[in-house]
Amino acid sequence: MAALSARGPRLLLPLLGVRALHTSQGNPAAKVAVVLSGCGVYDGTEIHEASAILVHLSRAGAVVKMFAPDIPQMHVIDHTKGEASQESRNVLAESARIARGDITALSQLKAQDHDAVIFPGGFGAAKNLSSFAVDGESCRVHNDVQRVLEDFHKAKKPIGLCCIAPVLAAKVIPGVEVTVGQEEEQGGKWPYAGTAKAIQALGGKHCPKEVHEVHVDKSRNVVTTPAFMGHVALHTIFDGIGAMVSNVIKLTGK
Amino acid sequence: MAALSARGPRLLLPLLGVRALHTSQGNPAAKVAVVLSGCGVYDGTEIHEASAILVHLSRAGAVVKMFAPDIPQMHVIDHTKGEASQESRNVLAESARIARGDITALSQLKAQDHDAVIFPGGFGAAKNLSSFAVDGESCRVHNDVQRVLEDFHKAKKPIGLCCIAPVLAAKVIPGVEVTVGQEEEQGGKWPYAGTAKAIQALGGKHCPKEVHEVHVDKSRNVVTTPAFMGHVALHTIFDGIGAMVSNVIKLTGK
Repeated sequence: MAALSARGPRLLLPLLGVRALHTSQGNPAAKVAVVLSGCGVYDGTEIHEASAILVHLSRAGAVVKMFAPDIPQMHVIDHTKGEASQESRNVLAESARIARGDITALSQLKAQDHDAVIFPGGFGAAKNLSSFAVDGESCRVHNDVQRVLEDFHKAKKPIGLCCIAPVLAAKVIPGVEVTVGQEEEQGGKWPYAGTAKAIQALGGKHCPKEVHEVHVDKSRNVVTTPAFMGHVALHTIFDGIGAMVSNVIKLTGK
Repeated sequence: MAALSARGPRLLLPLLGVRALHTSQGNPAAKVAVVLSGCGVYDGTEIHEASAILVHLSRAGAVVKMFAPDIPQMHVIDHTKGEASQESRNVLAESARIARGDITALSQLKAQDHDAVIFPGGFGAAKNLSSFAVDGESCRVHNDVQRVLEDFHKAKKPIGLCCIAPVLAAKVIPGVEVTVGQEEEQGGKWPYAGTAKAIQALGGKHCPKEVHEVHVDKSRNVVTTPAFMGHVALHTIFDGIGAMVSNVIKLTGK
């Protein structure tokens, strides 16, 4: 990132270049790609899921690179109102807010350069990375998302997904076992419980789990956890994501 | 939040009402206000600092309410380029991305309703909550920020701040002891080391600390930690913020 050339008043506090969010502690460290889809639960990546993934990857000593598609968002949602505005924003530019500027276009993500890939959730996975939010089981998946999932899968490299993002794997990897939580609403605890049926309709197998748990599809190296699909306290989501990251790292063998 | 009335295609996946990020585990739980300043390190709240604060508050069983001023941002920064765009965004609306919609105008924050208040960092604290990024030691602080800090201070209720946010306390609370990390750049490890001098010039006392540490001003109930002021791995920042939150909760006596 270039030094800030802000229009308007000169800043006494300079915006310095990007500082990496991670440093490797081990050798060789696992190289993990994280794919973002915007910034904010209702039109992009769920911020707390992304942050939890990055904290756990940092603690595991992984070398992380972040990616997002360089495309317009499907929606810009005013998160105070839950309403779409007429604004237009770019998925890569908004994802860069989570990545502190250190992010690359998804078209540049090659499975050969990484040991694993992780997709956080948020509506961006169902609006920008795919059309699941609108088309359900007849959804399309963004070309680069399809290519990345297929390439990691063919290379037998682990794939981690949470929240609504497992629908991407269900669409692309035939017969994949994933969890999006429980299959009944249970009085509001699982408001998106219907997603489990969509997983089946997409050709996947749904495995019910609680938020602190993961499902590991051992034959396909796919690790999933419900995260914000369940209505529980934030630290439980953080811990479930920790278990997902830990299983992904274990499957890399590093 | 009302149900989504998005323009454009109908969503099969509904945007449901806000789910609280926290549930109380203890009784009585500490009631903690968190003050945001946008969404993204270069023009708002540092996302990973806010998320870490919320995870640790959740684990402590605190009841959390989030606030932000309902004002235009000073800048909208394209985080891929580090450059200001001509866009205009609202601090409250952008902060709502971190709060998943559950946020209130800062004008409504009353010290009497809460046991403690916490300010994450990010350039928003120096651009939107104050003019520190432009005016340095002669900065102004937003009226509601000044009122909130004065009221919590008078009520002897704990105040937590991290990263660049301690400049707000230094400006408002005479003689306050805070840390913004180390006072020398140490070969790039502390790129904003000069901020320590500004703390002194504002009338505060600077106490050097590492990122995993906190400084507690015991006579004023102010707890600070360097967070992203230091160039270290993300999980170390997460842990330092954990220590800050834990000390704030302890000082509430709950």
